[in-house]
Amino acid sequence: MSVFTAAADQSVCRDNSGALPVLGRDVTVPLVTGGEVTYAALDYAASAPALQRVWDDVAAYAPYYGSVHRGAGYLSQLSTDLFENARGAVADFLGCRADDQVVFTRSTTDSLNLLARVLPADCQVFVFETEHHASLLPWQDAKVTYLNAPRTPRQAVETLERALADRDPHGPALVCVTGASNVTGELWPVRELAAAAHAHGARIVIDAAQLAPHHPVDIRDLDVDWVAFSGHKLYAPFGSGVLAGRADWLRTAEPYLAGGGASRKVTRRADGGVAVEWHESAARHEAGSPNVIGAYSIASACRALTEAGWDGLVAREQHLIAEVRAGLAEVPQVKVLSLFGDDAPRVGVISFVVEGWNSSHFAAALSAEYGIGVRDGLFCAHPLVRTLLGSDPQTQGECGAPEAAPGEKSLNAIRVSFGAGTPDEHVERFVRAVKELVTVGAKWTYRTQEGRCVPAA
Amino acid sequence: MSVFTAAADQSVCRDNSGALPVLGRDVTVPLVTGGEVTYAALDYAASAPALQRVWDDVAAYAPYYGSVHRGAGYLSQLSTDLFENARGAVADFLGCRADDQVVFTRSTTDSLNLLARVLPADCQVFVFETEHHASLLPWQDAKVTYLNAPRTPRQAVETLERALADRDPHGPALVCVTGASNVTGELWPVRELAAAAHAHGARIVIDAAQLAPHHPVDIRDLDVDWVAFSGHKLYAPFGSGVLAGRADWLRTAEPYLAGGGASRKVTRRADGGVAVEWHESAARHEAGSPNVIGAYSIASACRALTEAGWDGLVAREQHLIAEVRAGLAEVPQVKVLSLFGDDAPRVGVISFVVEGWNSSHFAAALSAEYGIGVRDGLFCAHPLVRTLLGSDPQTQGECGAPEAAPGEKSLNAIRVSFGAGTPDEHVERFVRAVKELVTVGAKWTYRTQEGRCVPAA
Repeated sequence: MSVFTAAADQSVCRDNSGALPVLGRDVTVPLVTGGEVTYAALDYAASAPALQRVWDDVAAYAPYYGSVHRGAGYLSQLSTDLFENARGAVADFLGCRADDQVVFTRSTTDSLNLLARVLPADCQVFVFETEHHASLLPWQDAKVTYLNAPRTPRQAVETLERALADRDPHGPALVCVTGASNVTGELWPVRELAAAAHAHGARIVIDAAQLAPHHPVDIRDLDVDWVAFSGHKLYAPFGSGVLAGRADWLRTAEPYLAGGGASRKVTRRADGGVAVEWHESAARHEAGSPNVIGAYSIASACRALTEAGWDGLVAREQHLIAEVRAGLAEVPQVKVLSLFGDDAPRVGVISFVVEGWNSSHFAAALSAEYGIGVRDGLFCAHPLVRTLLGSDPQTQGECGAPEAAPGEKSLNAIRVSFGAGTPDEHVERFVRAVKELVTVGAKWTYRTQEGRCVPAA
Repeated sequence: MSVFTAAADQSVCRDNSGALPVLGRDVTVPLVTGGEVTYAALDYAASAPALQRVWDDVAAYAPYYGSVHRGAGYLSQLSTDLFENARGAVADFLGCRADDQVVFTRSTTDSLNLLARVLPADCQVFVFETEHHASLLPWQDAKVTYLNAPRTPRQAVETLERALADRDPHGPALVCVTGASNVTGELWPVRELAAAAHAHGARIVIDAAQLAPHHPVDIRDLDVDWVAFSGHKLYAPFGSGVLAGRADWLRTAEPYLAGGGASRKVTRRADGGVAVEWHESAARHEAGSPNVIGAYSIASACRALTEAGWDGLVAREQHLIAEVRAGLAEVPQVKVLSLFGDDAPRVGVISFVVEGWNSSHFAAALSAEYGIGVRDGLFCAHPLVRTLLGSDPQTQGECGAPEAAPGEKSLNAIRVSFGAGTPDEHVERFVRAVKELVTVGAKWTYRTQEGRCVPAA
């Protein structure tokens, strides 16, 4: 059933440099040095702009929005179909098995917290200290083994194998690992880690927040049990995320949220309490009215990326990565952060520090003098960034913009990240800006105010 | 900081009948009897269309979307300000106290589940069996007292007072009650219930999902501790909700979600574990990248309703309610469901059954023959609807479209609901349709298929 003029048939138009059209590509921002410049959004690893195609789909659907599940009206049934079909689009995107569930959450963080809530009793969890806090922290009610940072993909597999070999082989176990690091962009050996997990009777979930926007993810090919990702990093910033994979733990656990939609039947009991029968489908963990626009926007992004073609998207992104890395390599004061070394396969996420610079001031100068948006800080992966910086955790600042005195070792780092919507000009401007800032210096001075680094008046 | 042309200065234009402009007001749907008709969305209690003003604000902002919190770029800082300022707009809308927190959640269900997770140890919870499942079910880890359905507002207060008088007066206690019923639309005596709760040392949270879209809610005036509501019922269907109120329980409890944004500092411990310092602000419970568009859309709706003026909105809605109730009263076969009787103050939510009709077939006919979208079922308030129908819980069907044989007592009900975007014509068409269906009968036959009632081929 489809009555509205969706943008689903639009061809995916690219700009001259091959970037997919995204919202905000013509937005200009003021420079502290005068004038305006088009904004270079180079913080995709935090959140990516909406694909124009995703926005067009959302805008075409919005007038047809209606209550989902159990509404009798035409638009309610249309919206229900759209929402339920969105699960199918995500399942196709991830190559899900026939009996996998696709649960819509609000984000990767939410997806992993959901999985943490459905662990079987006495489940052991294995997680590297190098993970983003979203994958590092949700397991605190379980018995967690934190694994030290490996320095090669092979060491990662060996570290996991040793830890799994030490465990009681009969109880349930879960490995949680990122597909691509949100700090270094480096790919983790997911297929090998999955094989190791399964060889030891453990399951594995992939934090694909940074992988899915940059690289095809096939749940069967990788042979992983679950995949989690966020819409807002996948060019669909409308408040939804996904947990997809094995249904069994999900189907039998207590519902993630208690409420309508998750409950099939509620009755008063003779003792005065209430008895609840919960659904066993994905709805079990989706209580409350679902975010239909969020789910639909993810489905739209999945279709758009698939139709654009992964081969071309990956090749183009690798070209941009090479350009940035080559540019940074020409600046001796720049140190790129890496766990697995120069030859590791990676996505468009690159973190670095600049000798003699406070990273927050450097990021502020990129914004104020070049209209380039990057991120500075510890990237919600504190243990990893400290390991990479070789810094003392006790002197390490908070997430935000800690200050280092001039000449001191950096307390945080700068991250540049990009993707399918990034035109060549943005990374060219970034490389030029880094070189100018390092060789000529900033044209302005910066200070930290209310946790934000801003141009000094 | 505002660089984009927001719709904030637009005057709120109304149509001829005084309705606020909403998306979808011109959408037509096909009739089973031939032809098309503009869709009459009369399921606002499930989910309301976006205000045109809200959509315009979202569309104006979307190109300026950026990562929030810790992004150094111009659009990141703009988006961060927009997101944080949205809290202020919600606080103004609810008349919050200076030290109240506004936490963005995904829905009322999520808000109440969050509150359930931050209850102090040994907290007793008091909840009427008449609540929506979202307010009835989240408390199952606490010591819950379910209160029987009262038949007058006064009885509600007396019932609560008796239950509170019986409790240990020294431990923490929470009362959870709806502001307006999602089944009958009747207002609950919130101010009196809050006074009773406080007199007995208990706190109170109001499920304002059905109240906030229809009626001003002033947290200080009502003297309640927390208010929860959903954006998608408040003309902002972008996946966000709100829990607003007392900060103390929120500030000290374990974070609702574990992850980035909620964590201030994460370090490895000497014993191999990790140590986490959590934020004490609203961010403590908002781990993961926030739904900026969702929060901004709620702020936009709050401003739009305030600027439109509650006096006029309430007066117009009361006129529509009177029209529907007068129309239904002329049909002897219609029985309107009510807990508090004809004179109770109410919002635009009316449930009823029609003698001789399966409610699902009746709702299907309203859709297929008149283009009217209502809801049939038990409205995620099973105990209440069963009480109102006088039906046996054991024979009662699931949420959905249970079948009753012709002539049997209805197993479920029909709900019509409307609000600020509803033109007079929609309720006029609804009243006419009910009368025609009851007196002339349906022009088509309907059958239940895959849980949905549809025209028989």
